[in-house]
Amino acid sequence: MPIKQWLLGHPLATAQAADERLSKPVALAVFSSDALSSVAYATEEILLVLILAGAAALHASIGVSLAIVLLLAILTASYRQIIHAYPGGGGAYTVSKANLGVTWSLAAAASLLIDYVLTVAVSVAAGIAALTSAVPSLLEHRVGLGVLVIALLTYANLRGVRESGKVFAVPTYLFIGALGLLLLGGVGRLVVGGAAPVATPPVSLDAATGGLTLFLLLRAFSSGCTALTGLEVISNGVAAFRKPAAHNAAVTMVWMAAILGTLFLGISGLADAYAVRPSDHETVVSQLGRAVFGEGPLYYCLQATTLGILFLAANGSFAGFPRLASLLAKDGFLPHQMSDLGDKLVFSNGIVLLGAFAALLLLLFRGDTHALIPLYAIGVFLSFTLSHAGMVQYWRAAWRFERARGARKALAVNLAGCVATGLATLVIATTKFVHGAWAVILLIPLLIAMFRAIRHHYADAEWALSLSQYSRLPTPRRAVYVMPIGGVNRAVVLALDYVLDNVEQPDLRAVFVDTDPAATAEVKAQWGKWGRGVPLIVIPSPYRSILVPLLQYVEQVRQQNLGGWVTVVLPEVIPGRWWQTLLHNQRALLIKGALLFKYRTIVLDVPYHLD
Amino acid sequence: MPIKQWLLGHPLATAQAADERLSKPVALAVFSSDALSSVAYATEEILLVLILAGAAALHASIGVSLAIVLLLAILTASYRQIIHAYPGGGGAYTVSKANLGVTWSLAAAASLLIDYVLTVAVSVAAGIAALTSAVPSLLEHRVGLGVLVIALLTYANLRGVRESGKVFAVPTYLFIGALGLLLLGGVGRLVVGGAAPVATPPVSLDAATGGLTLFLLLRAFSSGCTALTGLEVISNGVAAFRKPAAHNAAVTMVWMAAILGTLFLGISGLADAYAVRPSDHETVVSQLGRAVFGEGPLYYCLQATTLGILFLAANGSFAGFPRLASLLAKDGFLPHQMSDLGDKLVFSNGIVLLGAFAALLLLLFRGDTHALIPLYAIGVFLSFTLSHAGMVQYWRAAWRFERARGARKALAVNLAGCVATGLATLVIATTKFVHGAWAVILLIPLLIAMFRAIRHHYADAEWALSLSQYSRLPTPRRAVYVMPIGGVNRAVVLALDYVLDNVEQPDLRAVFVDTDPAATAEVKAQWGKWGRGVPLIVIPSPYRSILVPLLQYVEQVRQQNLGGWVTVVLPEVIPGRWWQTLLHNQRALLIKGALLFKYRTIVLDVPYHLD
Repeated sequence: MPIKQWLLGHPLATAQAADERLSKPVALAVFSSDALSSVAYATEEILLVLILAGAAALHASIGVSLAIVLLLAILTASYRQIIHAYPGGGGAYTVSKANLGVTWSLAAAASLLIDYVLTVAVSVAAGIAALTSAVPSLLEHRVGLGVLVIALLTYANLRGVRESGKVFAVPTYLFIGALGLLLLGGVGRLVVGGAAPVATPPVSLDAATGGLTLFLLLRAFSSGCTALTGLEVISNGVAAFRKPAAHNAAVTMVWMAAILGTLFLGISGLADAYAVRPSDHETVVSQLGRAVFGEGPLYYCLQATTLGILFLAANGSFAGFPRLASLLAKDGFLPHQMSDLGDKLVFSNGIVLLGAFAALLLLLFRGDTHALIPLYAIGVFLSFTLSHAGMVQYWRAAWRFERARGARKALAVNLAGCVATGLATLVIATTKFVHGAWAVILLIPLLIAMFRAIRHHYADAEWALSLSQYSRLPTPRRAVYVMPIGGVNRAVVLALDYVLDNVEQPDLRAVFVDTDPAATAEVKAQWGKWGRGVPLIVIPSPYRSILVPLLQYVEQVRQQNLGGWVTVVLPEVIPGRWWQTLLHNQRALLIKGALLFKYRTIVLDVPYHLD
Repeated sequence: MPIKQWLLGHPLATAQAADERLSKPVALAVFSSDALSSVAYATEEILLVLILAGAAALHASIGVSLAIVLLLAILTASYRQIIHAYPGGGGAYTVSKANLGVTWSLAAAASLLIDYVLTVAVSVAAGIAALTSAVPSLLEHRVGLGVLVIALLTYANLRGVRESGKVFAVPTYLFIGALGLLLLGGVGRLVVGGAAPVATPPVSLDAATGGLTLFLLLRAFSSGCTALTGLEVISNGVAAFRKPAAHNAAVTMVWMAAILGTLFLGISGLADAYAVRPSDHETVVSQLGRAVFGEGPLYYCLQATTLGILFLAANGSFAGFPRLASLLAKDGFLPHQMSDLGDKLVFSNGIVLLGAFAALLLLLFRGDTHALIPLYAIGVFLSFTLSHAGMVQYWRAAWRFERARGARKALAVNLAGCVATGLATLVIATTKFVHGAWAVILLIPLLIAMFRAIRHHYADAEWALSLSQYSRLPTPRRAVYVMPIGGVNRAVVLALDYVLDNVEQPDLRAVFVDTDPAATAEVKAQWGKWGRGVPLIVIPSPYRSILVPLLQYVEQVRQQNLGGWVTVVLPEVIPGRWWQTLLHNQRALLIKGALLFKYRTIVLDVPYHLD
């Protein structure tokens, strides 16, 4: 396959699969792009909800952000314990399968698959928003640009871009550096008093329609929870850390949480201090950047690094989604093809599927980050909750059966994580329901039903194909050969000769459907000359249908020959060029399709090549 | 096929094809809907061009309309002669094939096919415009409505709606009546002095940008020429008239031209007298209707009959396009499937193709009549020109070889028609080139090239399949049997038994591609138990590809067995439900696709049904 090789490069042998162990600083960069990148939009999403209660309500963003950071602290403690308990990698699917049983693990898998798709869609949309904030003329092309980025990510991952540490560390540290500089500069300007409110861009959002209700505050909290997406990535990848892996991963987890919390609180605080208003054509971070840095190179660096880390976060899903899909496929919950390693040792089918779904979402929501956000957090928090619920079960068992030291304290930590994330899930589901969360809430049980149906089918198929209870028929099944012909030509004569030369005294008959008496007479005469004595059956067809009388005849032969096979011999004309196949009757294809579901019916294709 | 029958009704036997002979009044209604319906938009298209030179330039529409009516008179005289010369039906394809040769007839066929598609698109778009003029709230749904109408027309024609005279006569006479009333009422109001200029709707068209140049006048003329589309329909359908058919058809032709000329001139005159300005949300006829009738029931009748005749005109193409396509298919210029009569004795493939193309055009041009018009007239006038040029040749031959009486006078009439339409074609091609005519001018030679390529391929295929020079191989070709397996299960054992029970001492080997040593050992052990002594070939595959090593092996066997066949036996697992096929490796399908183009390679599909 030269095209495939030209596109994807030389295939890799199975033996070439190798491991790379990451140091803490590199691992921090590799695993935290998903989590850190969300500060690029989380504050903005909070402000977008609060503005509905008027400009004064925007100050509530500080309180909301503090609540989210508290949640972050609880989750970090809880995840540290998952890291130690599952040093081989503790994804929500693994943890809930081990501790909560199949149904809950499928719920976790469904939410995770949805999340991976949304991570790509949201991160790419937000990355494009960072770009269009700096270069407003590109705003009208945002959907096309987003789809292009997804296509490039898909292609790169099919070629086997691996998360090869050092290269991927660069954008993450650049982003941390740029945001750190923004916070320092922003605070500095406030101290020396040179900070003026940002020139408010024309707001074309809904005007304030009501007061700052509790419901609105909870909705703002739900939107802000997107800041915590990607927190679970380290716990999935413990195995990639240098030894002692679990210890190093746990330390890195704390570092990541500290950086995430600092950046998120800093952006929220600065946005409040600089009186930033959310706008539909410039992001909050971009507005802050202009206010602190002016429109110089530093500002453009900030936007570029934001874009970089967001695309990196999207890229992370291209490893996570196919890996989870292959786990599910190995357990029989997804088609086996999802676990086939491609030429480049990546799960190609999963990569293509993720790219297609994410691009579809981006098209459906016209590349609008804000429209996608309500769908996002619900799945993430459901999987968080299931992970921590699984850990609660884990410690209960550890205590009950082994009286393990520290199990009760550990249980308390994970229980706190479980309750906190469970409450957050409920809040998100309630406050975002009408804005799109309903779709995810509907989709999760549908996916679980699909997983189960697939598993069920594979189990049935294995049983039906199994040889353990099989015994062969005592007498051989002999075949009756039926050859439909549309005329007498070289293709037909060739097929006839194949059967007569290879099968000893076959019970063969040619069948011709008569729609035109003149043509039929000609065929009969020709068959007399070329038919080698094989009988020709002519079936009249007053309604001009070829297929129906033919299938009726095959069925009749099948019924008369209950102990045997019916072998349908199809002389097929194969043209030299692909477009020419459109010019020959697609009847052979239709016959094959129709025969596929008849028992004891075999199709023998004899090609005749025109060139 | 119960679904097909439920959708399309009971099939009709070939013998049920019957003829219906039409009286002149009925034939006038049946054949003139296409031509008459164009007065619904022709005046408007003239005004839309003239307004570019300012409101004062609109008065030039009278002169332009008179020029078009002159052209109509010349064409009518010229077509009367075609009717008499080709009483069996004188379409542009037939006339130019008989008199100008294959190339020109293909040019005529290409323009006609394009025209049929455009007639549907333009007529449906204009019909929807008549509707949205009366019910402006539907304006935003015009594309969806248009596609719906095309889908319904396609469906009705697949079910075999025939142009059964009397029913189809109703909308045409209603339209003639409604427009006649409009003209009488409009003139009446002018005479009694009660006519005020139409309240000009807000014009969102381009403002006047230049003077009334000759080029603009010619462009207005080109737009107005759409009034003459459909003039050829009677000459195609002479055979459907009562005897004396040619005489009756010629009389009807004159009647049609007289009515068309009157209505067209009347609308143009009234539009001028009432100072109607073209608008992008209300048609000119609708504005006139409101001015003359007020917003009462008469106005709504006018719009409804306009809509009715336009959809009837579109429906006409659903007879014309498939009939022409079947003529071309019988001559080998289009795929044979285009000439297959469907269950309802209609050329189903042509109907579906026309519906699909017209819907596509409507979507591309967002249901905008004005945007489609520049593509329309060019093909119509090219086919007119070729018809009349063909007739000029016809009379030259008649004069030269037979000194036929009246041939020189007849030649003069058709020459006038040919020159007039030829000039009009040039004018249209020039003035509309940048507005879309270029696409049609480009498409016509491409279609001709396609026709020729198809004809060429059929000729080659016929030659390659012909038995006239064929002699059978002296010695029989024996087959080597290769059975690829992915494991040992009931499907594999069944296929093995089929070959061993039906072929005497077959040269058979099973082939397994090794991507995992553990699985391979298991397969070898199982094969030892179930393989009936047939050898098992194991091919290692370090790059995990199954397909490539398998095909290489088949190729190797083929090379070693140059005088014989390679029969590839495929055990196929057939699940009970369609969606389950997605869950089984599509490898069998890929193997079949790859083998299709190998010489001397036969595929034997042995199904194993899971249910």
